[in-house]
Amino acid sequence: MSQLLPAALLRAIDEIGRLPGVGARTAERYAYFLLRADAHANQKLADAIANLHSGVKTCPVTFALIDPDQDVSPLYSDQSRNKKLIAVVEEPLDIIALERTGQYKGTYHVLGGAISPIDGVGPEQLHIPELLERVKADDVEEIIIATNASVEGESTALFLQRHLIDADITVKMTRLARGIPVGVDLEYADQITLTHALEGRRLL
Amino acid sequence: MSQLLPAALLRAIDEIGRLPGVGARTAERYAYFLLRADAHANQKLADAIANLHSGVKTCPVTFALIDPDQDVSPLYSDQSRNKKLIAVVEEPLDIIALERTGQYKGTYHVLGGAISPIDGVGPEQLHIPELLERVKADDVEEIIIATNASVEGESTALFLQRHLIDADITVKMTRLARGIPVGVDLEYADQITLTHALEGRRLL
Repeated sequence: MSQLLPAALLRAIDEIGRLPGVGARTAERYAYFLLRADAHANQKLADAIANLHSGVKTCPVTFALIDPDQDVSPLYSDQSRNKKLIAVVEEPLDIIALERTGQYKGTYHVLGGAISPIDGVGPEQLHIPELLERVKADDVEEIIIATNASVEGESTALFLQRHLIDADITVKMTRLARGIPVGVDLEYADQITLTHALEGRRLL
Repeated sequence: MSQLLPAALLRAIDEIGRLPGVGARTAERYAYFLLRADAHANQKLADAIANLHSGVKTCPVTFALIDPDQDVSPLYSDQSRNKKLIAVVEEPLDIIALERTGQYKGTYHVLGGAISPIDGVGPEQLHIPELLERVKADDVEEIIIATNASVEGESTALFLQRHLIDADITVKMTRLARGIPVGVDLEYADQITLTHALEGRRLL
């Protein structure tokens, strides 16, 4: 097939095909779209991709993503935010999901993943020691474990809870509620979610 | 939200979000993947995108995509291919689909789209005059109209047929067969496809 398309187009299809969940057909579609797009717009996309690493730094306290000229995350340095409350998340983008609610005024701590033996991720690869340091340094009162509702997320939450108890840290630990999401009919909810919803039922 | 993520990451998410069918969440996922990927690999992707326009040319005869150092498409210059047989397709990538069959030994002609009044594409924007020239110059015997099975593709096929007749070109014109695709149960085939399959039935 190699001589059917120009080398430059094949190279673009190949490179775009590295993106997660992008198969050969989708990569072809993206590349062909870019080929018909304005060359100047493509240069902007290329620059944005090339400058991604140099333009992003990790906050040494919260491990959120920050600008290179920032020392710590503005979500931590902001005086109006409650430093005695930490939401522990797996990935930096999880912060955005919680911020979109507009309801959370504490700080964050990014673990950098979840415990997953299959993927070779153990607790030693996560930012857990730094969390313990923060708990002591900031005199933290509550840790909201906001890992995903996946097997890995649940394992990480459990590990974290035990690890903090073992380290003699007797801070209040909470977990995001599990239950029926808004707009979902009872008959379509799975058994585990329904069990969680029953267990977590609230007095009216 | 703007201060929640580094400017470089937001820019990448924005630019990636221009790709067709890529929403905000998918753009975030791609950008975050690239952020965790190797900087050298990202540079290769950026270069491939930036060099797309300079690395791709259009064949002046068939309007297929070719390398900048080629004069005409190798699918046309190849002596073993039958120049008296032309498959007319909408887009350059349609050529790949036909080549993958390994059954076609004629040449191609890319129209550059299909007639679509809604999108403002009329016959004058398609490479139809160049097709007429080729038909005369190469003494063409058959034109296979291989436009898509969409309303636009069918309209284009009909227009092309009439246009060639009006231009007193009495070449044999064929259309790709419509029928039941391989692996599809009769009960799931739509009425129009089934009608086509009945009309185009073949003697055993």
